[in-house]
Amino acid sequence: MSFNSRLAQICQTKKSYVCVGLDVDIEKMPAFLRSEADPLYVFSKAIIEATADYVAAFKINIAFFEAYGKAGWDALERIVASLPENVIRIADAKRADIGNSSQRYAHAFLHAMPFDAITVNPYLGYDSVKPFIENTDKGAFILCITSNPGSNDFQHFNNGDEQLFEKVARTVSHWNTLENCGLVTGATHPEELARVRQLAPNLPLLIPGIGAQGGDLELSVKNALTSANDKALFNSSRGIIYSASDHSFAEKAGKSAGELQRAINNALIF
Amino acid sequence: MSFNSRLAQICQTKKSYVCVGLDVDIEKMPAFLRSEADPLYVFSKAIIEATADYVAAFKINIAFFEAYGKAGWDALERIVASLPENVIRIADAKRADIGNSSQRYAHAFLHAMPFDAITVNPYLGYDSVKPFIENTDKGAFILCITSNPGSNDFQHFNNGDEQLFEKVARTVSHWNTLENCGLVTGATHPEELARVRQLAPNLPLLIPGIGAQGGDLELSVKNALTSANDKALFNSSRGIIYSASDHSFAEKAGKSAGELQRAINNALIF
Repeated sequence: MSFNSRLAQICQTKKSYVCVGLDVDIEKMPAFLRSEADPLYVFSKAIIEATADYVAAFKINIAFFEAYGKAGWDALERIVASLPENVIRIADAKRADIGNSSQRYAHAFLHAMPFDAITVNPYLGYDSVKPFIENTDKGAFILCITSNPGSNDFQHFNNGDEQLFEKVARTVSHWNTLENCGLVTGATHPEELARVRQLAPNLPLLIPGIGAQGGDLELSVKNALTSANDKALFNSSRGIIYSASDHSFAEKAGKSAGELQRAINNALIF
Repeated sequence: MSFNSRLAQICQTKKSYVCVGLDVDIEKMPAFLRSEADPLYVFSKAIIEATADYVAAFKINIAFFEAYGKAGWDALERIVASLPENVIRIADAKRADIGNSSQRYAHAFLHAMPFDAITVNPYLGYDSVKPFIENTDKGAFILCITSNPGSNDFQHFNNGDEQLFEKVARTVSHWNTLENCGLVTGATHPEELARVRQLAPNLPLLIPGIGAQGGDLELSVKNALTSANDKALFNSSRGIIYSASDHSFAEKAGKSAGELQRAINNALIF
């Protein structure tokens, strides 16, 4: 089954478009966990178990693990191996390099580790993305319009007919021959999100920026999911995983994930 | 001292503009090394010792280490720690994420590990680059015009006045307030290289693509180094580190690095 079909099936079966982002920071987790031998793993495992029923996907932010060096990689490998079967496992790595180097990153995340998909930067073009989309069951979410302030620096560059993010959306639609390409479109840009949905009707959208970053959830849901055929994942990281700093942290994270699931489902227009 | 001044000083003192790229692949190294307990480290150490006198910089391609999981990270940490003092140590990581995630990557490469600089992707804009250029003694080489075929997909996008890679070159010049920004400009695009040199006269250029990728060395030297004030590093990876597959592999790599040093110096027009 193609990656995009599997994503749609999981969203449908679990009635959830929620993606929980594991931006795991030892400084931000409950203080009593910091004395554990492996706080990254212990915290993540508890969050995963408490939220799994409410989510379609987990997105692991690789930056937060690399910051801890080889201990971080060790935890990362064990965390992704521990994710349940019926979720999409996304490496939020934002990689891309010339072909033979991208091939090594694809090996690291999609083969040596069992991620289902990875986030990819489009700047280097097709041969830098190809190694991530050569197997239909593994997918890539390519950065299109990002949720941060710096998205204004280059993504709106305009050739008179279209802006760079629009060209990326159109181009990635053409790359989607194995039905395993998606786009990253920040909830902080609801108009651009609607435009991307028009330009790439078949692609799943990975939508960060609804929690701590302040994106409008209802409008994003309306613009990304225009019919039951549309595919999207709405990511919240800090807004879910740091819901409490006492012994109820996992239970509260589960509650936050359930609330986001309901808020999205209530905002659906179909 | 700023990163860019230190780079210039090292090139001047060592009379070298050579960067050796450590794209270390166990399949490509001499067969007799593969039975070592830590072939990545043993091979890299031998290459570093044999080439260090001829080079201004080493560039470690992080993709090749991540492909080996936590064993790769372990070797990476030890290799970068073993690099000599009088070289520029570049993490070829092509990272960038929204601000708080880029901050974690900056911590990983420029603080937890002692790299002097990192390669960065510009697509996400200023706040994604800022964490890498906050200390004047640490630098970032931002992708501008890359050496691969996919560079044609987005980097030539044209707003009528300029192309995207030109806008990146101009913009990064403005970001260079701490004198620690550079640009990645592939030797496979000699005309664009000359244009970047015009647009960003003060920035060091990191120039891949002269070896296995087929870029024209003489023309690239002429276009990147127009006077003794210009700063550039010419990278060769496969063309140096896999110079032989027998017990002379390190000696031959040193010979190749010395030949590249002389070829560049002979092509200088000042």
